[in-house]
Amino acid sequence: MEGDAIDELLAVPGVRLGTVSAGVKTPGRKDLVLLEIADGATCVGVFTQNAFCAAPVTVAKQRLNETGISPRYLLVNTGNANAGTGEAGIEAATACTAAVADRARVLPAAVLPFSTGVIGEPLPVETICSAIPQVFEALSENGWAEAAQGILTTDTRPKGVSRTFSVNGEKFVVTGIAKGAGMIRPNMATMLAFLATDVVVERHLLQDLLAQAVAMSFNRITVDGDTSTNDACVLVATGETGTPTIGDPEEPQYCALRDALCEVCVALAQALIRDGEGASKFVTIDVNGGYGEQECLDVAYTIAHSPLVKTALFAADPNWGRLLAAIGRAGVPELDVDRVDVFINNILIAQGGSRAATYTEELGEAAMAPQDITIRIELNRGESGATVWTTDFSYDYVRINAEYRT
Amino acid sequence: MEGDAIDELLAVPGVRLGTVSAGVKTPGRKDLVLLEIADGATCVGVFTQNAFCAAPVTVAKQRLNETGISPRYLLVNTGNANAGTGEAGIEAATACTAAVADRARVLPAAVLPFSTGVIGEPLPVETICSAIPQVFEALSENGWAEAAQGILTTDTRPKGVSRTFSVNGEKFVVTGIAKGAGMIRPNMATMLAFLATDVVVERHLLQDLLAQAVAMSFNRITVDGDTSTNDACVLVATGETGTPTIGDPEEPQYCALRDALCEVCVALAQALIRDGEGASKFVTIDVNGGYGEQECLDVAYTIAHSPLVKTALFAADPNWGRLLAAIGRAGVPELDVDRVDVFINNILIAQGGSRAATYTEELGEAAMAPQDITIRIELNRGESGATVWTTDFSYDYVRINAEYRT
Repeated sequence: MEGDAIDELLAVPGVRLGTVSAGVKTPGRKDLVLLEIADGATCVGVFTQNAFCAAPVTVAKQRLNETGISPRYLLVNTGNANAGTGEAGIEAATACTAAVADRARVLPAAVLPFSTGVIGEPLPVETICSAIPQVFEALSENGWAEAAQGILTTDTRPKGVSRTFSVNGEKFVVTGIAKGAGMIRPNMATMLAFLATDVVVERHLLQDLLAQAVAMSFNRITVDGDTSTNDACVLVATGETGTPTIGDPEEPQYCALRDALCEVCVALAQALIRDGEGASKFVTIDVNGGYGEQECLDVAYTIAHSPLVKTALFAADPNWGRLLAAIGRAGVPELDVDRVDVFINNILIAQGGSRAATYTEELGEAAMAPQDITIRIELNRGESGATVWTTDFSYDYVRINAEYRT
Repeated sequence: MEGDAIDELLAVPGVRLGTVSAGVKTPGRKDLVLLEIADGATCVGVFTQNAFCAAPVTVAKQRLNETGISPRYLLVNTGNANAGTGEAGIEAATACTAAVADRARVLPAAVLPFSTGVIGEPLPVETICSAIPQVFEALSENGWAEAAQGILTTDTRPKGVSRTFSVNGEKFVVTGIAKGAGMIRPNMATMLAFLATDVVVERHLLQDLLAQAVAMSFNRITVDGDTSTNDACVLVATGETGTPTIGDPEEPQYCALRDALCEVCVALAQALIRDGEGASKFVTIDVNGGYGEQECLDVAYTIAHSPLVKTALFAADPNWGRLLAAIGRAGVPELDVDRVDVFINNILIAQGGSRAATYTEELGEAAMAPQDITIRIELNRGESGATVWTTDFSYDYVRINAEYRT
């Protein structure tokens, strides 16, 4: 499914990226990315909540959060997730990052590993290590677009977004890239996303900012409900501008950064959905009028994960009965179904739990025809709301996932 | 997918069934079933837990559980679910059952309505009422097989099972029929199932027996996780044999009935899965070694609902990484992934959370080849276990549900 064209990606002073073909899985494909972070930058991350987290996630989390050493390099390979690989997987991730640390003369703990691809196969350590010299050669401040390409798996196109913002006449930038098209129901982070800005922010504030941005972007999308073992999202603040450190959430700089960061994350998250496996529709699910955000999310995700709703979306069939059935099994306590209204692209479909008097099949079909569909549910019992984004369920989803390893 | 041939269905003294073509949706298709219950029989039921329950479910539950009047007739139509139809749906269900009550000279509350088919369209009351005389004409003790045909929707074949059992030299029978192929994740009952026996049982014991049998059969299957708005399961004990009433769960008669009833329900539930929409595999998911049944069920259903696992099953691809990823996101508290073993058709695939040393891709492919697949997960932390049955996810599932209303 075509979406917006990838924005022109702006360099972030203090960050260089290199991308090469190491031959991890498919010869000639760009599959190894190195991201270099200037000394003195601040770096925070969020990682998958899947209990089976991959070896690189285990290593990256530990180094980022427990060593007190600030990362200088992020090493990313595609083609192999290094997940379900046990102790050998930890050793493989450690060996690849050691090769980077040796060459750059930094501490091993200053290099974080990231992997994506097939689960359960041994990581080809020698293949990766032999490409390390080239990937250092390729480092460039203008390497974002090529890196966005180099981290893809089943994605059909790269995802990257830049936003600038000004504070007191000074101009700053946030740039981010992300990948992921299947096994997408991020839980704390998406499959892989790398974000950088050139402002200076205290570490705990940077972590808060990332958590806020992820909560309203990557944590609000789902393709298939399958949380990946390798989800990771990293945010770097390089501080190359030499401006004073942001240390107070009340500062205008903080708010300007937060807004720009959220815009980048939401745009990247939506780009993942537009490129979701087999997707022919971009679906926004808005649930309003709940007693709290959680019950709105429960309804939204039950709809977003219903195979019957998703196949009806694929067929552009206004089968609103499947929406009612999904709402009804979402587990909302004491739901009064006689108050529930359902809109598709602003056409009132069901009112008070049954077909709206004004509804006709022709109106429903017209509402379901566009590529972008907004399903709005009004629970009419409280003041809370929530939005998630998802895809439909097509023959191509089955094909892509039936053929993935062949 | 072909399964066992339908058993020869045995008559249950005290129950007669009639099946005709009323023309509810497709002309000429058998779509209206009347089940007549002898005076003095005991009848219990379980119904969908979906908050959007259909009008006939609302009416049937109220009449069965709140009026004190024992049902004499069950009226079942296919082609229209009479769900999402509001007050008009209640009136429609009431009108159809009134036509039966008039003709049979019984109280209106002694007739229970059941509907299955498309959600959200008005029930064609006149079409159904005009076929009532014919369906009375068709009543016969040997009408089970035809009734099993008459309640189908997207099912490709009828499902019915009989079991006999003897107590003190006397022979009894349990016969049941069921329908359902999509929107199958029963919650307290399957889409529609009708069961009868000729023993005499006290009402509260009969309700307990049904709950026990449903818990280990219809409540352990899933096709797509979509709980229907119309699920209902009814059990009739006619008492036509004239034997003493079963009034004590310690009696051998009670145990014999319970065993026969469970056998019938499990066989019917498995038949629903074998005929699941687009199913090419019959998948048993056994989860053992949990701290309690609930966490075993959480793991089993997370696997059973994972689109990635289901498409891999369709492709006969031993993609065990997807199994690990599903186990890891099932929400089991403090799961130690390094203790988890995974077997497919008794081949050890993953041991201690990563690929088993003895595993080869050839072994995995051989294990995935048969139509019947058993995925066994050993959590190795407690003594509990649970089993669920499910299907794979195929092109045909998408096709059937994209084309359902066209």
